[in-house]
Amino acid sequence: MSESWPAWVAFRLQSSRFAMLSTVDTFGRPHAVPVCYAYDGAFFYSPIDRKPKKVASEKLARVRNIQSNAQVALLITEYTDVWAKLWYILVRGRADLLRSGEVHQRAAQLLKQKYWQYARRALAADALIVRIVPSHWNFWAGPGV
Amino acid sequence: MSESWPAWVAFRLQSSRFAMLSTVDTFGRPHAVPVCYAYDGAFFYSPIDRKPKKVASEKLARVRNIQSNAQVALLITEYTDVWAKLWYILVRGRADLLRSGEVHQRAAQLLKQKYWQYARRALAADALIVRIVPSHWNFWAGPGV
Repeated sequence: MSESWPAWVAFRLQSSRFAMLSTVDTFGRPHAVPVCYAYDGAFFYSPIDRKPKKVASEKLARVRNIQSNAQVALLITEYTDVWAKLWYILVRGRADLLRSGEVHQRAAQLLKQKYWQYARRALAADALIVRIVPSHWNFWAGPGV
Repeated sequence: MSESWPAWVAFRLQSSRFAMLSTVDTFGRPHAVPVCYAYDGAFFYSPIDRKPKKVASEKLARVRNIQSNAQVALLITEYTDVWAKLWYILVRGRADLLRSGEVHQRAAQLLKQKYWQYARRALAADALIVRIVPSHWNFWAGPGV
């Protein structure tokens, strides 16, 4: 996180509630899913929640992709029909998968602090968490931001 | 478009105002941008608007990527804090770039019909339009959709 960034970038990184995670399969084809995330000022953490069985294979696509190609893109944005107020943050970097340990525990804690939903619907203690190590940042905002 | 799809899928394809377009560069790294789109029942069309000069290279990233790797993913979703009402549609397929001609004109027309914003801020007659030919569909919705 850089001190020279516009104020809105730091604000949105903390306050935004969701992002889109793009991964690439072994054939070079992109895949994308909406995710929730937490940002600790250095890394991004995105949990893989349990979903209904019917999407089990889809749920695993990002996992398989990351295992064969660690390069990911995380896009944080929100739509508004007032296009002058559009903005986005694109974070690119490498991902790895956390399943347990101290870093996993701290990431789970961050996610629980950010999302009140985890009070009702527990984040499983062994939930996989995607950790993203940013290497490229892009951000853009319309003149109304 | 399949008749066996849930009603919400057809509805969202038409009514949703934005999507995320993922492409892949020559190093196998994903890139993603928020886009607007129109769907004609067979193909998706996403315009490349002029943006401030400072992001010229970013603006072209998806173009360069598509030129070297036509595989793209289009993710249509909307965030809500009521997670039971979350949904997404993931369209994967091949993209090409339209710059002029009858198909380009028809796509531009569709986009102008869908987005009132183009009444004020004209879609340039020579604006590149990304056309996506879907090959894989995935959709998922929470129990509250």
